[in-house]
Amino acid sequence: MLKVVAQFFFRNGEVEKALTLAKALVVETRKEKGCISYELCQNPEKDTHIAFIEEWESQAALDAHFQTPHFVDLVPKIQALTERDLVINTFNKVA
Amino acid sequence: MLKVVAQFFFRNGEVEKALTLAKALVVETRKEKGCISYELCQNPEKDTHIAFIEEWESQAALDAHFQTPHFVDLVPKIQALTERDLVINTFNKVA
Repeated sequence: MLKVVAQFFFRNGEVEKALTLAKALVVETRKEKGCISYELCQNPEKDTHIAFIEEWESQAALDAHFQTPHFVDLVPKIQALTERDLVINTFNKVA
Repeated sequence: MLKVVAQFFFRNGEVEKALTLAKALVVETRKEKGCISYELCQNPEKDTHIAFIEEWESQAALDAHFQTPHFVDLVPKIQALTERDLVINTFNKVA
């Protein structure tokens, strides 16, 4: 089982637009077969800092996610609103 | 609902000891009333990089966690094995 934490850092003034796009991504991603959970989270002390906290059945399921129409459409639009590179960490669940 | 991602970076040679301590922390923490989930995760590409991915009912539940005997006992022992400061991010679940 794979856990993913993908953190985005948006420009001031772009958070509302980013959240709208991110929520659309959540809705479509949760329909994917290998997606166990896919949560959109926001730093309460810095609202421009957003994270997707994800759980996937396998690397194959995560790889398939990257090829979906909603990922290919929405993620570049979300990234265009960031002030710096996103940070992605992938983990195996140990316990 | 609060999500926490706590990342630890251990010195080479200390991972096995750190995981043993971390697993003990997982067992006790999951017994806490306000703990929804508490998962121990490891970076498959860098086994010295460990994360706790956590979900708590409230800030009060998380604050209570920091005062528990198992937290007070085990976390300093875990931190003593790290090569640099841990990184903690706390998020509100948005969707």
